[in-house]
Amino acid sequence: MTDPLVWLPFDPADLGDPPTGLRYEVVDPVDGDVPDSVADVRFYVAPYRLGPEVAGVIDHMASLEVVQTLTAGVDNLRGRLPEGVTLCSGRGIHDASTAELALTLVLASLRGVPDFVRAQQRHSWATGWRPSLADRRVLIVGYGAIGEAIEARLLPFEVDVVRVARTARPAQQVHGFVDLPGLLPDADVVVLVVPLTDQTRGLVDHDFLARMKDGALLVNLARGPVVDTDDLLAALHTRRVTAAIDVSDPEPLPADHPLWDAPGLLVSPHVGGMTSAMWPRAHRLVRDQLHRWVAGESLHNQMAGAY
Amino acid sequence: MTDPLVWLPFDPADLGDPPTGLRYEVVDPVDGDVPDSVADVRFYVAPYRLGPEVAGVIDHMASLEVVQTLTAGVDNLRGRLPEGVTLCSGRGIHDASTAELALTLVLASLRGVPDFVRAQQRHSWATGWRPSLADRRVLIVGYGAIGEAIEARLLPFEVDVVRVARTARPAQQVHGFVDLPGLLPDADVVVLVVPLTDQTRGLVDHDFLARMKDGALLVNLARGPVVDTDDLLAALHTRRVTAAIDVSDPEPLPADHPLWDAPGLLVSPHVGGMTSAMWPRAHRLVRDQLHRWVAGESLHNQMAGAY
Repeated sequence: MTDPLVWLPFDPADLGDPPTGLRYEVVDPVDGDVPDSVADVRFYVAPYRLGPEVAGVIDHMASLEVVQTLTAGVDNLRGRLPEGVTLCSGRGIHDASTAELALTLVLASLRGVPDFVRAQQRHSWATGWRPSLADRRVLIVGYGAIGEAIEARLLPFEVDVVRVARTARPAQQVHGFVDLPGLLPDADVVVLVVPLTDQTRGLVDHDFLARMKDGALLVNLARGPVVDTDDLLAALHTRRVTAAIDVSDPEPLPADHPLWDAPGLLVSPHVGGMTSAMWPRAHRLVRDQLHRWVAGESLHNQMAGAY
Repeated sequence: MTDPLVWLPFDPADLGDPPTGLRYEVVDPVDGDVPDSVADVRFYVAPYRLGPEVAGVIDHMASLEVVQTLTAGVDNLRGRLPEGVTLCSGRGIHDASTAELALTLVLASLRGVPDFVRAQQRHSWATGWRPSLADRRVLIVGYGAIGEAIEARLLPFEVDVVRVARTARPAQQVHGFVDLPGLLPDADVVVLVVPLTDQTRGLVDHDFLARMKDGALLVNLARGPVVDTDDLLAALHTRRVTAAIDVSDPEPLPADHPLWDAPGLLVSPHVGGMTSAMWPRAHRLVRDQLHRWVAGESLHNQMAGAY
């Protein structure tokens, strides 16, 4: 009997201390080159870019038991797996990187980095007073793992953090979405990290923006359609609020889109997770999952709705 | 007998709970209008901008006991006060704001905010991988109060902080300047927050920059002359290191200075302390000092060499 086969999208040496008694093959189906061993794969670590070809390759995996993604979202694989296959997400891999971008966009916007860059282009030493992050009230809308990671990074800045999630969890001081109308007028910064669902699509509309405090900053690290683009554009042109967005609707923004030139807006091109922080955390998760699988223990990040 | 006179550069109502039994007058000598009461001033809170006119006004203060500045540095007043007058600095007022700018410049540089701003000007969605702050080793060169404030804000980012000061303090894991040659090759980010002294002038020269790791980031929040400008310019043009500077030499940078267009450089126009965080902290320090003075207690931040 041969050892169970694991397909990885990276060198097994990156796992550091992987379990013994497994065979490892490095396969990235984006190459279009699917080895014959596909029928023997029992644990499949899918490539970071979950293109449609990934589900196509899985169709050939007759011995498959586990699919592990490196993305937090598994939308491309939901309902595509054979019955009985366990689907595990990469939840946690991107928390550090995404939380870090939240702080980057908040600090850059408040302290004026876009103005510094433009002044530097004009060779102009344009000094002036700016708001600090210190003493601000920050609303984290979507208080899950990434929200917690953002909060941990915010707290040493002498800020007041207010937690908001879909459903209130009073024991953890988490407010519900229903409390937003009362919370928005007192928030200096509003950070969006909700998943995209029927309830969050268009959550930030004219009414939401109108309730925000004068001079407040909106930061979208969630998904583009959580914010109504036309309403954001109109709000920015009043110059009453500012914004920084890592996601947009449409995405990518086409070259002729009016958002590019909206006043008080910083656009980052969906790079929340795209940093050097990803791979060490991906390797740690996969190593841990393989050890659990070999030991017959329950895997982390199991997702419902795989088949 | 009249109550002792205090001159403030802001409304005494901002003090919240000032000691009773004092008279307060709001005077900013930058106006050029020096009231006759100058001879009665016993506690003088100097204006934030310590111009040469401040020392001129002090010359008329025949009853003076205390000068409190709102700046951390008191160079403009050293040796200018009558014998017996206590000089207190504004140390601590700017820590939060300056430490916050350190994080702003580090995060903006690593995560690519200047590139985002320039891509936005071109209407270009230019996504790509960037270094994270997570997993980086950060050298804080000048481990005093601001260095501690920077460290507190860095730690939740999953970084490795290395403390360096003029003199090693092994009990606090603080290295001395003599250890820099061995520390620089392993540091991803080097943050300068040293005071300008004979020992720190030109500290960052060709040799210092040559020892820095490939791709490392230098952040100067100290004073311009701590870095040799020509050597920095040469190092940036090799594209082996990057930098972000809140101070420069000369400062301000003249419009025709070659630093403006150096590759991999972000220039912020000496705004470390210029934020909304300053005033609440200034008011708290002054209120505390006045209570101590009235109670006959020792004042904070007493500076040697006042006269």
